[in-house]
Formats: sequence, C-alpha cells, structure tokens
Amino acid sequence: MKQILVINGPNMNMLGRREPEKYGSATLDEINAQIAEKAEAMGMECEFFQSNYEGEIVAVLQNSEDYDGVVLNAAAYSHYSVAIRDAVAATPLPVVETHMTNIYAREGFRRESVLSAVCDGCIAGFGADSYVLALRALEGILGA
Amino acid sequence: MKQILVINGPNMNMLGRREPEKYGSATLDEINAQIAEKAEAMGMECEFFQSNYEGEIVAVLQNSEDYDGVVLNAAAYSHYSVAIRDAVAATPLPVVETHMTNIYAREGFRRESVLSAVCDGCIAGFGADSYVLALRALEGILGA
Amino acid sequence: MKQILVINGPNMNMLGRREPEKYGSATLDEINAQIAEKAEAMGMECEFFQSNYEGEIVAVLQNSEDYDGVVLNAAAYSHYSVAIRDAVAATPLPVVETHMTNIYAREGFRRESVLSAVCDGCIAGFGADSYVLALRALEGILGA
Amino acid sequence: MKQILVINGPNMNMLGRREPEKYGSATLDEINAQIAEKAEAMGMECEFFQSNYEGEIVAVLQNSEDYDGVVLNAAAYSHYSVAIRDAVAATPLPVVETHMTNIYAREGFRRESVLSAVCDGCIAGFGADSYVLALRALEGILGA
Amino acid sequence: MKQILVINGPNMNMLGRREPEKYGSATLDEINAQIAEKAEAMGMECEFFQSNYEGEIVAVLQNSEDYDGVVLNAAAYSHYSVAIRDAVAATPLPVVETHMTNIYAREGFRRESVLSAVCDGCIAGFGADSYVLALRALEGILGA
Amino acid sequence: MKQILVINGPNMNMLGRREPEKYGSATLDEINAQIAEKAEAMGMECEFFQSNYEGEIVAVLQNSEDYDGVVLNAAAYSHYSVAIRDAVAATPLPVVETHMTNIYAREGFRRESVLSAVCDGCIAGFGADSYVLALRALEGILGA
Amino acid sequence: MKQILVINGPNMNMLGRREPEKYGSATLDEINAQIAEKAEAMGMECEFFQSNYEGEIVAVLQNSEDYDGVVLNAAAYSHYSVAIRDAVAATPLPVVETHMTNIYAREGFRRESVLSAVCDGCIAGFGADSYVLALRALEGILGA
Amino acid sequence: MKQILVINGPNMNMLGRREPEKYGSATLDEINAQIAEKAEAMGMECEFFQSNYEGEIVAVLQNSEDYDGVVLNAAAYSHYSVAIRDAVAATPLPVVETHMTNIYAREGFRRESVLSAVCDGCIAGFGADSYVLALRALEGILGA
Amino acid sequence: MKQILVINGPNMNMLGRREPEKYGSATLDEINAQIAEKAEAMGMECEFFQSNYEGEIVAVLQNSEDYDGVVLNAAAYSHYSVAIRDAVAATPLPVVETHMTNIYAREGFRRESVLSAVCDGCIAGFGADSYVLALRALEGILGA
Amino acid sequence: MKQILVINGPNMNMLGRREPEKYGSATLDEINAQIAEKAEAMGMECEFFQSNYEGEIVAVLQNSEDYDGVVLNAAAYSHYSVAIRDAVAATPLPVVETHMTNIYAREGFRRESVLSAVCDGCIAGFGADSYVLALRALEGILGA
Amino acid sequence: MKQILVINGPNMNMLGRREPEKYGSATLDEINAQIAEKAEAMGMECEFFQSNYEGEIVAVLQNSEDYDGVVLNAAAYSHYSVAIRDAVAATPLPVVETHMTNIYAREGFRRESVLSAVCDGCIAGFGADSYVLALRALEGILGA
Amino acid sequence: MKQILVINGPNMNMLGRREPEKYGSATLDEINAQIAEKAEAMGMECEFFQSNYEGEIVAVLQNSEDYDGVVLNAAAYSHYSVAIRDAVAATPLPVVETHMTNIYAREGFRRESVLSAVCDGCIAGFGADSYVLALRALEGILGA
Repeated sequence: MKQILVINGPNMNMLGRREPEKYGSATLDEINAQIAEKAEAMGMECEFFQSNYEGEIVAVLQNSEDYDGVVLNAAAYSHYSVAIRDAVAATPLPVVETHMTNIYAREGFRRESVLSAVCDGCIAGFGADSYVLALRALEGILGA
Repeated sequence: MKQILVINGPNMNMLGRREPEKYGSATLDEINAQIAEKAEAMGMECEFFQSNYEGEIVAVLQNSEDYDGVVLNAAAYSHYSVAIRDAVAATPLPVVETHMTNIYAREGFRRESVLSAVCDGCIAGFGADSYVLALRALEGILGA
Repeated sequence: MKQILVINGPNMNMLGRREPEKYGSATLDEINAQIAEKAEAMGMECEFFQSNYEGEIVAVLQNSEDYDGVVLNAAAYSHYSVAIRDAVAATPLPVVETHMTNIYAREGFRRESVLSAVCDGCIAGFGADSYVLALRALEGILGA
Repeated sequence: MKQILVINGPNMNMLGRREPEKYGSATLDEINAQIAEKAEAMGMECEFFQSNYEGEIVAVLQNSEDYDGVVLNAAAYSHYSVAIRDAVAATPLPVVETHMTNIYAREGFRRESVLSAVCDGCIAGFGADSYVLALRALEGILGA
Repeated sequence: MKQILVINGPNMNMLGRREPEKYGSATLDEINAQIAEKAEAMGMECEFFQSNYEGEIVAVLQNSEDYDGVVLNAAAYSHYSVAIRDAVAATPLPVVETHMTNIYAREGFRRESVLSAVCDGCIAGFGADSYVLALRALEGILGA
Repeated sequence: MKQILVINGPNMNMLGRREPEKYGSATLDEINAQIAEKAEAMGMECEFFQSNYEGEIVAVLQNSEDYDGVVLNAAAYSHYSVAIRDAVAATPLPVVETHMTNIYAREGFRRESVLSAVCDGCIAGFGADSYVLALRALEGILGA
Repeated sequence: MKQILVINGPNMNMLGRREPEKYGSATLDEINAQIAEKAEAMGMECEFFQSNYEGEIVAVLQNSEDYDGVVLNAAAYSHYSVAIRDAVAATPLPVVETHMTNIYAREGFRRESVLSAVCDGCIAGFGADSYVLALRALEGILGA
Repeated sequence: MKQILVINGPNMNMLGRREPEKYGSATLDEINAQIAEKAEAMGMECEFFQSNYEGEIVAVLQNSEDYDGVVLNAAAYSHYSVAIRDAVAATPLPVVETHMTNIYAREGFRRESVLSAVCDGCIAGFGADSYVLALRALEGILGA
Repeated sequence: MKQILVINGPNMNMLGRREPEKYGSATLDEINAQIAEKAEAMGMECEFFQSNYEGEIVAVLQNSEDYDGVVLNAAAYSHYSVAIRDAVAATPLPVVETHMTNIYAREGFRRESVLSAVCDGCIAGFGADSYVLALRALEGILGA
Repeated sequence: MKQILVINGPNMNMLGRREPEKYGSATLDEINAQIAEKAEAMGMECEFFQSNYEGEIVAVLQNSEDYDGVVLNAAAYSHYSVAIRDAVAATPLPVVETHMTNIYAREGFRRESVLSAVCDGCIAGFGADSYVLALRALEGILGA
Repeated sequence: MKQILVINGPNMNMLGRREPEKYGSATLDEINAQIAEKAEAMGMECEFFQSNYEGEIVAVLQNSEDYDGVVLNAAAYSHYSVAIRDAVAATPLPVVETHMTNIYAREGFRRESVLSAVCDGCIAGFGADSYVLALRALEGILGA
Repeated sequence: MKQILVINGPNMNMLGRREPEKYGSATLDEINAQIAEKAEAMGMECEFFQSNYEGEIVAVLQNSEDYDGVVLNAAAYSHYSVAIRDAVAATPLPVVETHMTNIYAREGFRRESVLSAVCDGCIAGFGADSYVLALRALEGILGA
C-alpha cells in the first residue's frame, strides 16, 4: 500500500471545537478517520500529523522519505513560511497543497500561498473533502 | 444521472496539437472521452463545451440551468474576465475552477484568477486528472 | 425625434432572472420598455442592444453613426475593455457611461472604469433609473 | 414639496468669474437659479449652501435632518475628506454625489472620490446639468 | 488637580444620535460626564472640546499650554491631517491618541493614523472606555 | 512565394474614417493594398484579416499553419489579451508585433503589451509603414 | 476573581537585561510582579506566559478557555504571524493587543500588526503601564 | 508699489515659540517685519496673512485680485489640500510656493506638495530667507 | 545621399567577442559593414558611433545637426538615461529606437525604455537586422 | 569676493539653440554673463562649468574646495545620479539645487530629485532667474 | 581563543542530502568540520548550532553572551523573521550575516533580508566558503 | 601569481579626505597599499583602478581579460548602472561585489544593487576589510 503523510498546520487541531460555521462540526480526528477510510479504499495508508510549530512541520517534511506522497495543509503558514517552502522544495516526493476553505475568496493576505510554486498542485475549497481529493490527486501522480 | 457541464476556454482546443511537453499529447477530445468514462462510473453525464470567445462562455454559463454543476477551465480568461466572473456569480449551480497546470507556479499574471472568489473551490496542477478531480469535488458538493 | 442607442454589456440580459436582491426583479425587456416610454416623453426614440461579446459591442459602436447619442452600460467590460474604450473614443457621438449599481461602492476592481475618460459623463447607482437619467443627460448635451 | 439641500464645496463660489473655459460663464447664483426653477417643476424646493470650509460642510450635513435629500458637490474635498465622508455616512438622507466635470477624465488624484462609497449614486460630467440630474435621481429615490 | 484637555474631532458630536449600533446610544455629553466623573476620582479635571474644523483643532492644540496633558480623538482627521500632526508635534504636553472603535479592524484608509508617530501612545477599540484608559495613561505619564 | 498572414485587431477597420489626425486618412483597405504591393516585391503574398473579436483572433492564429509568418497588430487587445498571447505562444510561426503608433509614447496602460514577450520582435510608431517593416523583418527571419 | 492570561512574545524575556534605554531597566519578572499587584486591586488574577516560539503562543491561546480574558503582547510576531492571528480569531475570549512601545512611531514594518483586526482593541506606547491599561480595558469589557 | 500677499499656513503662527532648533527663534511677526523691510527696498508692499484653516486660505486666495503676486507657504496643507490647489489654479496672479525648511529632505509625506504643479515655481530650505527669495522671484516675474 | 548617424551604446563594442549565443558571432564592425552596404542600396550613407559613456552619447546627439536621421541603440542606457532622453528630445531629427534583442521579453527592468516616448518609433528583436529595419523606417519618415 | 561655482548638467549647453519655447532664446553663455553681472553686484565672483558627463560633474564637485558655495543645476542627472548625490554629500560647501523649469509640474519622473535631500535648499521654476535667486540664497547662507 | 557561535537556520541540516547541484554534496557536519579547522588556524573556536525552529534560534541568540561573535545563516527565516531580527539587535556581539548562495540573484522574496539592517555586515554567494569568510570578517571586527 | 583587478567607483577617491566618521581616515591609496600587502601574502597581485565615470568602469571591465578575477566596489553606480551590470555579465571572470559599508542598513535606494544578480557573490559592511575578504573569496573561487 502507498504510504501517505497528511500534514496539518497551526490551529487545525481546533477543528470542530471552534468556529464550526466556517469549518464544520467535525473534529480533526473525525476527519482523519474519514480520510483514512477512503484512503484505504484507494489502496493508501495515511499517517496524520498536526503541528502548530513551523519548525516541526519543516522537520516532518525533512523526514518524510519513507512515504510515497504528502498532503499538505499548512494553514496560516501557507502565506509566509519560506522555511516550509524550502522543505517542500527539498523533498523528492509529490506534495499536494490542500485547503479546506477557498483561500482565494478570503482576506487579501490569504489569497497568496508561498508554498504553491513548489507543490505539484493545489486543491482548495471543498471542506474535509479537499483531503480526499488530494489523495486522489496523489493516486494519479503516483500511478503515472 | 447528474448532468455536468465541462467548459474549456481559449486555446484548450489545441491540446495535443501543440506544446505537448507542457500539456501532454492527448487531444481535448481524447481527454474528454476519458473524463466522460470516469464520470459515468461516478453516475455523472458530462457535456463538453469549448470556446475561444469570452462572450460565448458567458452565454453558456447563463444557459446552464439544466445542469447540476459546472467544471470551469476558463484558461487565459481566468486572469481578467470579469464578464465570466459575473456569469459565474449569477449562476446558482456549484462551479469548480479547474486548471491543468499549477497556475501558481507560472508567470506572475497567471498566479491570480479573477474567477476564484466566486467559484466553490479550485483544483490546479494535475493535468487531465484535474477535470476528474473537479468532478469528484462536484460529487461531494452535490451529494451533501 | 432624437435617435438614441442604448447598449447593455455582458450578463445584463439576466436582469430579473437572477440575483434580484441586487438588481431588482424587472427583466431587461421590462426595463427597456419603461425607458422607451420615458424617452418618448422626452422626444427620443431608443434602440436597445445587449451583448455578451466585447467584439460585438465594439462593432455596434462603430456603426452608431445614424444615432444622435449613446447610453452605454458596458457592465463587466467597463473595467478592462480597451477595445470598447477605443471604439467610444472613435465615435463622434456623445456617450454617457451608465451603471445600475454604485460601482464606486463595490469591489476594488469595479471602482475603476477604463471607459470613463472617453465618455462625456457618468451616472451610477440609481438602478433602472440610471438609464433614464442618462437619456436626460443626452437631452442636455444634444440640446446645447 | 420635497426639501432638497444642495451643497457646493470649495471654489465653487468662483464659478463664472474664473476659468470660464472649463466651468462655463454662469455664476453659481445663476446656476442655482436655474436649478431652483427646474426643481420647482419637479415639486422640489432647494436650499443652496456653499462653503470653502470642510468643517462647515460637515456641520451642514449633520444638521440636514429637515431635508428630504442632499445633492453634494464637495469639489476638491471629494478626494480626501474622510470627515465629510463620515458625515454623509451618518446621515439617513439620500445623498447624490455630483460633479460638473467628468472627474474620471482628469488628473489621477481626481479620479477617486472618498465620498462615493457612502453616497447613493454619482453623476459627473454634465456641467450645471449635473445638479438637475441629481435632483431627478433624488426624485426617483424619494418616489420609490 | 491635573488639568486635562479632551479633544474630539469631526462628527463626534453626533454620538448617540446616529448609528448607535456602531458607537452606542450615549451622547457625547453623557460620555463626557462619565469621563469627568472618573477623572475626578483620579485627581484630574477635564475640559472638553469638540470641533468639526481641522483648523480649530490646530488652534486649540496651540493654546493648550495651561493643561497638563491631552486626550486626542481626532476622528476622521486622524487619517490625513498633517496640520494637526504638526500642532501635536509642536506641543510639549503628553498627547494620547484615542479611538472609540478599533480602527485597525476597519476600512483600509482608517488603519493608518498620521498622528500616531507624534503622540505618546495610542488606545483604540474600547468605546467610551477608551477615553478613561487614555486618562489613566496620562496619569502614568504625568506621575512618572 | 512566402504566405504571410496580416492580422488587425479591434477598431483598425475604422482607419481613415475617424480620427485621421492620429491614424492618417488612408482606409484599412487602401493600406492593405499598399502592403500587398510591397509584399509582392519582396516575394511575399499577404492575406489580410481584421476582427473586433478577441476569440476570432485567437481562432485565426490557431489556424495559421499554412502561412509562413504572421504580422500581428492586435490593437487594444495587445494590452490585456492573455488569450491571444497564449495563441501566439502556441504557434510555431514567427510573429512580429506591429503598431502604427508609438505605443510607448501614449497613455500608461498602452505602454505595456502582454503579447511582446511571446512575439519574435516588435515594430511600433511608423504608421502604415510599420506593416511593411514587419514584412521585412519576417523576410529576415524566414530567410535565415 | 477574574482570571487573566498575560502573554508575552519573543525577546520580551530580555527586558531589563538589554537595551534598557528603549525598554527600561525593569526585568519581565519585576514588571509582571507590578502588574499582578495592580491586577489584584482590580479583582483580577494574572497568569504570565512568555515564549519565543510562535507555535507555543498559538497553543497557549488554544488552551486559554479557563481564563476570562487575554492581554497579548506578541512582540515581533505581531507583524507577520497569521498563525497567532488565527488562534486569536478562534478564541471566544476578549483579547487586548498590547505594546510597550508606540509601534506606530517606529520602523515601517512595525507600524502594521496582523493581529489588530481580530483583537478587541489595542494599547501601545506606555511602557510597562500598557499592560495595566490592558487589564483595565478587559475590566471594562468583562464588566459590560 | 507692487502689492504682494504673503500667506502662511497652519502652525506658522507658532514660529519662535516652539521648536526653535528647527525653525529659529524669530517669531512670525519679527520675520514679517524683516520681509516687509526688504520688500520695501524692492519697491514692494506686503500684506501678511496667516491661518490654521484650509477654508480661510482658500478664501484669501479667491479674494487676492487686488494684489500683484502671492508668496504662499501653505505649510502642512501643501501636502494634501486639493482645495488650496484649486484656489491657486483659479488665481490669475503669479504664486510662488515657499517653504522655510527643505521639505525634500524630510519625512516621505512631506517630499511631495500637491500645490507645486499649479504654482509658478518653488523655493525651499532657506529659513526666513525663503520668503525674501520668493519676493525676488515675484519681482522677476512681474518685471518681465 | 541621406546621411544617417548610427549610435550604439555601452557594451555593444563587445558584439561577437562575448556571449555569442545571445548576440550572434558577428562583431560590431562586421555588422556595421553589412548595414553600410544595405544603406547604400537605399541611398543612405551611415556614420557609426559607439560609446560606453552616457555623456558622450549626449554630446554626439547634440552635434548631429548635419545628419538626416538617427538610429539609436542606447543599450543599457535605454532603461535609465534621462540625459540621453533629453538630448533626443532636443534634436529636430527623426530618431528610431533600435534593439537587437526583444527587450520586452527580458528582465523586468529591461522592458521599459525611458527613450521611447521621445523617439519616432521603436524596432526590437531582430538581431543585426534591427538596424537595417531602422534605416528603412527612416527612409519612410524622410521620404514622407 | 565670495567665489561661487555654478554647475550645469547635461544638455544645458543647448540653451537658446533648441526648444526656445521651453527654455527661452538666451544661450548658456548669455545667461552666464547676466548671472556674473548680478553676482558681482552682490560681491560674488562666479565660475561656470557645464558637462554632459556625470563623472565629470562628480569630479568638479570633489575639487570645489576653493569655492565658497555651489549653484547646482544637474538637469537630467538630478533624477537618478546617486554618484552626484554622494559627491554633494561629501562636500562641506553649501550647495543650492537649481532648476530653470518647475520640475514639480512636469513628467512624473522629473518630480523627484535624488539630490534634494543633500542640498541646502532648492529653487525651481524661474528660468534664468533661478540662478540669480540661488546666488542670493548662498549670499544668505554665507552671510549667516 | 575567541569563541564563535555559528548558527544555521531551517533546512541547512539537509545539506549534502538533497539538491546537491545547488548546495554541493558536503553535509553540514562535513562543512562544519572544515570551518572548525580553518577557525582553529585563525585562533578561533566554533560552536555549531542548527535549528528549524525560529524560536530556538531566538533563544540561542539570547544566550550567546559567552561568545565573542556570531556567524548567522538564518536561511529562510532571513526573509521574514522579525523575531530573530530583534534578538540580533538585542545582542551586543558582532553578528555577520552569511549565505551560501547569492541570495540577490534568486527569487524576488529572497533578495531582501530583514536581518541585514541589524547585522554588522553580510557575506553571500561563496558556498561553504561564506562561513570561513564570515569568520575572517569577525576576526577583523574583534581585532579592531 | 594571480592577477586581480580592484575597481572602485565614484567618490571612493575621496576616502580619508571627507566624512572620516563614516569611511575612516585612511585614504584610498593607504587602503590599496594594505590590500596589496595582504594580497601578496595570498599569492595575488592587485591592480587598482578608480573612476568617477560609469563609461570608464564599463571599459575597464571589458578589457579585464588578462586578470584572473575582479573585486568590484561600484559605489553609487551599484544602485542603477545597468551598463556596468551588462559589462559584468559579459565578463567570463569571477567578480565579487564589495562594499565598505553595510548598504542594507542604509537609505532605501542603497539597499538594492543592480549588480548583485550578475556577480558571484557579495561582501558588505566591513570597511577596508571588505576588500581583503573579497580577495579571499576570489582565492576560494579560483582555487576551486
């Protein structure tokens, strides 16, 4: 089975606990469980990682070599973390940038992601479904 | 079956005929055939429309009421067509913005889409697979 | 009677059918009928033209020589169509820029019109009444 | 009869005395007389106020509660007076922004009005006729 | 007792009369009365001054030498009045910039104050309480 | 004989009819006749195409494969049509950007052409002669 | 007693040890002791937290639910940490942005705080007193 | 004798009273006396006017018709008063922009004057001597 | 015979010696010889001048009165030399701006030429042929 | 007698020979003669220097130590020559920036001078008289 | 022996493992060994520290007081970490900014370092040699 | 011995004569003597060249082929001389950009060098030592 690393950035651990009108009422664990289930159906096994620390996300990306691909929702860090960008650029794995909300329809500073240019592609705006779509995108890339 | 309208903008009719190193060697018809096949497996029927005319894309969006959702790759028009933006905003259907290339990794003027803010979400960078992912995104939206 | 050409740009044909909370529930035909009636009272006869095609609006302006004046609501094209701007500049007729909504109170990109500098004046924000005011403005210009 | 307050900003009292090639040879008093006459025909009574003082225009707007609507040509202040903007925003009356010249065809700094976003609509470019058109616009708003 | 000059800029005299959902239902007089009461408890005596005139605020600041400190809510003028800025810079008294609303969370042009750089500090966002906090800030500065 | 496609964009069909002080009194047909004559002397045969429609210019470029080179005066579209830019980029033929006026000496928005970066070179400012120079430039490119 | 969380960002632990001419000679512990004392007099109990880690500040904000309010001096992170901004936005508690120096009078990049728009208000420029004023601001918010 | 109007803007009445290290220790009256004396030697009679009110400076410029020329130090208003700019533009008299300090060597916002484009010329940086130089400049203009 | 001055700016004397992949392997002398030959066929005599000194190019333009026209490739100076611009503006001769490379397809700072606005027209992107095209352009201008 | 160095930059040697409508019909020599005469009346002796070479102007400024002051009209170089700016900054002499035209009323790039910040003051817009005014300004500075 | 702290920022621990074509094939440990050896020859002892965490780099800088100087390659953080900037500013030690690549020849966002203004100097572009040059720079500073 | 060309730009010949507080009291000759001595110890022979003329620096770079490397301190020209940039780009030798001061900590316009992108690397901020460090950098490059 393909091993996929799913990385969630700062405040994603608050899913379901706060602002449910924006992010839904499912917790990150519940969402991860759904993703894992759908991943399995695609012949993929996901490992889930969440951190509020930019440096920790950098480190996890550096040590991702045993995976086949990465689903990356860096959340707030998407908009300024050159450190994460450099870690993505240094990774030989396919990385799919993922956002639950349509960042291009939000505040000005959220409409640009410094990560996009070094990821394989981007999926944004489909809620928890964005992760599943990212897995399918990886499926396509890895199958090619 | 869900009826899906797949709209391709200017120059997409040249797929496979020119610049294959950037867009692959499959023609638009071949890609559409693949999409149709996968759509069918998802219980969806696609109608394909391509135009080099901004006004024609506007008109097609205006007359999309018999469909359940739209996959929209407005190509070059994505970056300046307020007319298409207004047509999308006026449509009650879910619209998924779709790009074969990762537009965020290309020339500066291609990194911003004036359509994003009025679409449900965006999928970019996965070649012909972007369309299939967009269908799956619609599947999620329509199923909800 | 003065012959007036009333041009409506992209998506104006959707009036009354969609987003009535923003543009009212009257259709373009109904609005045109009201305008025609009031025009007649001013000794003016209106011809109405709507197009979603930038090029067609250019052509109509080029062939406007038998009219005495133009009421131009280029809608979305107001914000980027240098082609329409050049067609207006080339026309010897008085042209009154017209908008149903107050474009200066909307999204940033809608606050600037590339047409304004070559029109005689601008009227914005009064709904269907904007057209009638534009006719009256033409009345003043033509009467002078 | 509807009571309308017509406010003119700085230097409008110089009309007819200087730069007649740009603003015509009629004085402000003569223009006001014409406006009053046409207003009467519309069942409106105008009170005219002119000031070179930003603060005085603010005060007049604050004390406009006995009127039914405002025609506001803030002249130079249109381009930077947040104080007048705030006074307009605080007024429950309809306010029509009015300019004799087509400000969108003049120097860069004159193409943006900080008042537009809080007025009901804008009329610019028709000389003294702009005021009459503004009255007609108010007629429409008040009649609705 | 310390003598404190409390200056309010344009439209602050409308407090309580208009837009109560934004600024509360208390009038400026009522707010001033509350401030005066709390000031007294701090051993301070306030004189209150409001003007819609930029020049008058300049003059009041120029003639503030008999006071021990200034609470300055220049309202709209905060965002462009270099004249008031120069008057503040010329004053040897401590001046605390004060805003009832959180100006940094409002329209773009309201997020910058040209006065901040020449004031001792800034307090924004606490409604009528902002004035009392400014008095306490002056208390700290004057007591030092 | 070399086959050359000469494309003229919006409003170029008005040549000679309007604004002769800027573009001269020759009509497009007259200019084309002159160009054809000089082309023949160079061993070239020109086909002339004019359109006010962006989409049509895109289509003509897509179907230019039987020509040896293109002279492209996209007029107003030069300044914003990414669609035409993409069509030029997709064409294997040499394309010479051509302007009758010196666009770099005109309004700010006309000083930048989004087409230049994908054309072989640019010739601007020599009136009808610009087309002949463009043919000569193609002669050089094709002869090399 | 109200429980208040006082958060200090990077380098605030150096207070009193370096650059005393800018930040005073009191250490963070000494300042905290003063704050605690004054807080007690207001019927408030403060818990003090300092971190150089953006991620840790995010985490502390996420786990602040047992407090009644937050005093937040994010120091350098104020100017770019969207992660902390998102954590503040997700918190239902009142948060008062606090700065010892008048950030609006310093280097350009320090004049904008990305946190301001999601805090209740801001207090800047009063040295250690800024914290006490922030407590008083919370007192007002919580008492309301 | 030539009649010259010398206008000083906001805060210039504080000369000599505050910030003498920047503007010298002479009061405005003392400076005016020196100017008057030197003017007399040039066959000129000066009338001096100072105001903190933008509107009053506008009015004085409007009523300057009995003078032969104007020396204008609009101080802070130089940087944003379009109202004064319009008053200068409407005046047929020669107007010399004058600044005591070298505004081009000060804060960014002070390096641009909105008045310069409508004045005859500008003299900046020579302290009280700037006024005398401005008189000499007028002498040259009026003598021509 | 028409006398034409061909001016080459800095580093053009390195042609053929360095970076031949960008500028070809012909030296400036060889290119000049080709140009001279073709010029002769057009009834023109060229004088060639190259300098690395901005001031020298200014001087040569100032002393160009015995020529009939100028071909100007100011190379790097095209992008910032206001001195050369002023010299071109002061010259009554026709001046054709010329570039061997397509400057509009290169680095951002090379896409703008400060000379264009004062030249008759511009030819860029045709290698050594650009000079010959410039001669032909002059031929047209001088023949008119 | 005070020794004054009068420096003129590029193209100033063309005075009187070209564009007399902008710069008058007097040649630089004639202007210098007038200046010298008026200088003598002020007890000053002028040495005149003109160069089209930026480097030469730098050198002349470096070797100006035997003079008492400098009148500097760097013409085009005013707008970009950091080299001349550095030479002015390194000179202990008073330097008065001088322009014959009102540069603040011309093209955008001419409205900023990189020299102003290091000169004592600036005089612009009075034709040949600007030099005499600059001498008088030096007279004031040197006499102080 | 002088004690030198060599700090490496995020992703520098990947040296030699990934993208060797850009950063060479030596690992960070190998590079550090070379640096240590050359340092010893200069009478310096280096301690090496690498972190992916912005906060940790801040902390290490805060606790650097037992060293004589710092070599700081903050990598990605150089471009946005105001927190590290503040830590550098608070340090009394000399700090030399160091980059292996020539950051000024890379992507736009990498051409500016927010740290430069508070470091003693900067060395960029010499691969591993940059560190040795930085040590030599410290040698000069410490020896002075 | 390696032959190194050391180029100094405008005003560097004033070293030691003026502004010693910024650049030290050593003259350029004294600094060159120190550099030569240290160069010799590294097995390098330096030739020193200084010019205030941009064109001369271009020429010297063009004729540098007998050297092994270049130390280039273009001083003021670093910030705008595209001519020198092109000369550096055309040179096959290694070129090390060198600045005595930390240009990144100075005025805005000095923080960007147009030369950096075409040099091998940059050393800034170490006074006369910057040159020696540049020699060492060349030593590393040439030894590789």
